[in-house]
Amino acid sequence: MRSDTDTDKGTDMSLDLSADVRALTARLVDIESVSGDEKAIVDAIEEALRPLGHLSVDRDGEALVARTALGRAERVVIAGHVDTVPVAGNLPSRVEGDLIYGCGTSDMKCAVAVMLKLCLLEAPNRDLTFVFYDCEEIEAERSGLLRLTRNHPDWLAGDFAVLMEPTHGLIEGGCQGTLRAEIVTHGVRAHSARSWQGANAVHAAAPILDLLNAYEPRRPVVEGLEYREGLNAVGIRGGVAGNVIPDECVVTVNYRFAPDLSVDQAKDHVRDVFADFEVRFTDAAPAARPGLTHPVAARFAEAVGGVPRAKYGWTDVARFSELGIPAVNYGPGDPNVAHRRDEHAELSKIVECERRMTAWLS
Amino acid sequence: MRSDTDTDKGTDMSLDLSADVRALTARLVDIESVSGDEKAIVDAIEEALRPLGHLSVDRDGEALVARTALGRAERVVIAGHVDTVPVAGNLPSRVEGDLIYGCGTSDMKCAVAVMLKLCLLEAPNRDLTFVFYDCEEIEAERSGLLRLTRNHPDWLAGDFAVLMEPTHGLIEGGCQGTLRAEIVTHGVRAHSARSWQGANAVHAAAPILDLLNAYEPRRPVVEGLEYREGLNAVGIRGGVAGNVIPDECVVTVNYRFAPDLSVDQAKDHVRDVFADFEVRFTDAAPAARPGLTHPVAARFAEAVGGVPRAKYGWTDVARFSELGIPAVNYGPGDPNVAHRRDEHAELSKIVECERRMTAWLS
Repeated sequence: MRSDTDTDKGTDMSLDLSADVRALTARLVDIESVSGDEKAIVDAIEEALRPLGHLSVDRDGEALVARTALGRAERVVIAGHVDTVPVAGNLPSRVEGDLIYGCGTSDMKCAVAVMLKLCLLEAPNRDLTFVFYDCEEIEAERSGLLRLTRNHPDWLAGDFAVLMEPTHGLIEGGCQGTLRAEIVTHGVRAHSARSWQGANAVHAAAPILDLLNAYEPRRPVVEGLEYREGLNAVGIRGGVAGNVIPDECVVTVNYRFAPDLSVDQAKDHVRDVFADFEVRFTDAAPAARPGLTHPVAARFAEAVGGVPRAKYGWTDVARFSELGIPAVNYGPGDPNVAHRRDEHAELSKIVECERRMTAWLS
Repeated sequence: MRSDTDTDKGTDMSLDLSADVRALTARLVDIESVSGDEKAIVDAIEEALRPLGHLSVDRDGEALVARTALGRAERVVIAGHVDTVPVAGNLPSRVEGDLIYGCGTSDMKCAVAVMLKLCLLEAPNRDLTFVFYDCEEIEAERSGLLRLTRNHPDWLAGDFAVLMEPTHGLIEGGCQGTLRAEIVTHGVRAHSARSWQGANAVHAAAPILDLLNAYEPRRPVVEGLEYREGLNAVGIRGGVAGNVIPDECVVTVNYRFAPDLSVDQAKDHVRDVFADFEVRFTDAAPAARPGLTHPVAARFAEAVGGVPRAKYGWTDVARFSELGIPAVNYGPGDPNVAHRRDEHAELSKIVECERRMTAWLS
């Protein structure tokens, strides 16, 4: 949705990687890149990276992979998405004190700025693979990272991955899995003036809501991190017309499960909870174990500091986990303001993140 | 939705009122008249009635009112709608034994055929007002009868009304009132991966469904007829997205109430039942008392025979009731097959209805 004026200002699309990471963040934020419309920003990143002799650059659609080939003992994958949620009158970016405001500041252009600064390291102590990808903020099947795992899994090879999603500068280990299921009741339609001739499927959903209200979520500890599960209705629907007894009611539940359960085990649990009802699973994504017990992850945690915590939300670390690559979430953005109209990031956190990552890799 | 062929066959649109009531029913059924598309059938009826010297004919859009002016002591209004629900591959009509099949056979072209036969009575013992109207099968505000009550209440004046909706040849007295209300719960949105930061409005709807399950509907006797109330969910909705704790849940309930309650009293009752919740009323239509204690109604009941029963559904008798005209439902169609693909009417019931009405009015 860029304006014609923006498109015409061709030179404005270039990125100066020698700029300060804060200025580079502002620059990236000001190149609109709502999911599905990432070409301009990916072109700019590719143009900036191509001249760097120590990186080989590959592209698949709007996903870009830049790699060193220094023959180091370990290879680290550093990944971030370049798309944002829709702009909400919050562009261009503006700075107020230590905060930079704008769509995508925290989620996650500040992290992309850090990645671009790390791309300048000519002789890092580990081989590096930078992954910039598209369509993270929309339906999973369009994810650029998913596409790379299918088309070019070799480009993603590595011993450890850092996914730079917003964590406010803390290491968040693994991620919880998520699944959605429809819990369904059935009835018999009838005219509501003669309701006794039917059976009301909405009324029949009462015990489903009772089960949800009574549910006690687990808080298991996995590899030292405490996870916090949840089983919640995220939707309910039923009804045919204003004068008809409904013959179906569907409660959509979302189960967020800790990484000690597989998707199949999580499904079994949901089936158990709603044993008296029809259960239809609609989608699921596996959890990822924190992976912090892996030596390379432990060294990373030591280098960047802080106390690792569990990641409650589902993130793309699970995709690395599925490829057999231990992965953590670590980024300078603030997850609590992501997707909000007043989204912002702390400039000092961005500088600190760049410093810690640089120190770890130098 | 008539085909071009139909429109071209101008002469086929004419009605022969001297035909047998069964043949006339078939003729009317074969002139498609889905709500909003009644011009052809109303034109045909008008053309058939204009030549009758004992009737004055008035038209408002697709509603037609034909009246005698014989100076009789009583005036009876006989009313029926000419529209049907959408055709469902069930035209043209066909006869199998005593049944005539087709869209609108029972609801209510067989009754319109009886009305047209009664229009031929040149010297009935009561003055007669025949009301043929449009758009009964769709949203109330488009009702042709409602339009007549606003534009020409004088056309509808009378001492008693017979609404010839399908009752299978029984007198059904009055009608129950109906109101719809939204019972609303509120919560706090949160990401479903951190559900404890929110409050789930769908879970909070459990007590609403519990109240509905525990509800004991009344069965009051009004003017000798037993009514049977009902309070039912006809819809439920809630949910923002698959990963968001919903902040609102709306249960739409439909209260069908007996004619011993006014709309205001019915609303008070619903407010009482859901005293702990926000209640938003969306629409309401008053009940109509059976009116069978009125002398003219009693004479009608005596003349056509059978044991009058209560009408559970809401019908246009309530509109006559609001005009101060006692009204009953009485028609030859079968209410149980109305609106169905296999809709049909019993030919013998149509003949019997014509005979009884003619006897009453002669």
